[in-house]
Amino acid sequence: MTGAFDDLLAANEKYASDFSGSDLTGRALRGLAVVTCMDSRIDPLGLLGLRAGDAKILRNAGARVTDDVLRTLVLAVYLLGVDRVLVMPHTDCRMSKSTDEEVHDLIAAERGIDTRSLEFHTVPDQNAALRHDVTRIKASPFLPSTLTVGGAIYDVHTGRLAPVEL
Amino acid sequence: MTGAFDDLLAANEKYASDFSGSDLTGRALRGLAVVTCMDSRIDPLGLLGLRAGDAKILRNAGARVTDDVLRTLVLAVYLLGVDRVLVMPHTDCRMSKSTDEEVHDLIAAERGIDTRSLEFHTVPDQNAALRHDVTRIKASPFLPSTLTVGGAIYDVHTGRLAPVEL
Repeated sequence: MTGAFDDLLAANEKYASDFSGSDLTGRALRGLAVVTCMDSRIDPLGLLGLRAGDAKILRNAGARVTDDVLRTLVLAVYLLGVDRVLVMPHTDCRMSKSTDEEVHDLIAAERGIDTRSLEFHTVPDQNAALRHDVTRIKASPFLPSTLTVGGAIYDVHTGRLAPVEL
Repeated sequence: MTGAFDDLLAANEKYASDFSGSDLTGRALRGLAVVTCMDSRIDPLGLLGLRAGDAKILRNAGARVTDDVLRTLVLAVYLLGVDRVLVMPHTDCRMSKSTDEEVHDLIAAERGIDTRSLEFHTVPDQNAALRHDVTRIKASPFLPSTLTVGGAIYDVHTGRLAPVEL
């Protein structure tokens, strides 16, 4: 790697020297998977009262239930002990502030790159998107009908989680 | 939501009542995106010496650079200030212990579900997969050639990050 990551490697030296080891495995001790956004204002374990080893954490732009998320959930459920899934988008999300078309236009104007062959899965209506995404999990023929699925929106300004009726 | 998430909502009540607020935005203050696995033994911010707001965190099964990850990186780079990406799989990953075929067979035998229309992106060789995944980012026509991309494997038993020459 180039020196562009030297700050991270130096910080990791210190982390590793203080690391106390762990007997945890990859199984989700509390049977939970959380699908949330890449936004690093979100501390998924902290805000849900979890510890390392308790849950599987999935993150992408917008906390959207893409095919990649469904693939990951199949593995989490059948191999790693997950029996409940919380889909958790957040307030003040960049994905909820533009349409796909606006993002394509912005990137074309600023960088000269045509991204129109991509689907960004922007979120014009967060409640509607959350209902859609929870349904994608519940209706998947690859996941068990016994899987419990819930949705809630995390407020990055108050730290509070608001369940959404689906 | 059903009562299946009451433990999480109760824990969040306490988190929110202690929450001190924040002026952070969705921009990555240290220009970083990290692509890692859903495994919750990984504390991405902690192990890299980061704080909330510093980085975008992407997570799926195996830290694989799927189309969903590329979509997310395009948004992170052009809208949220990311100019370097670290792809960070980990040791003791379930994805490195079976082939796709073995996972299909296991799910069919244990649960009677035919998942063979899915690609699981299991990882027979972690270094090879990491090189492949870093190349997927570097070669993307949708991302700038100036984007810095690195790869490193995180050891869940020692807390240490090992850069991989690509």
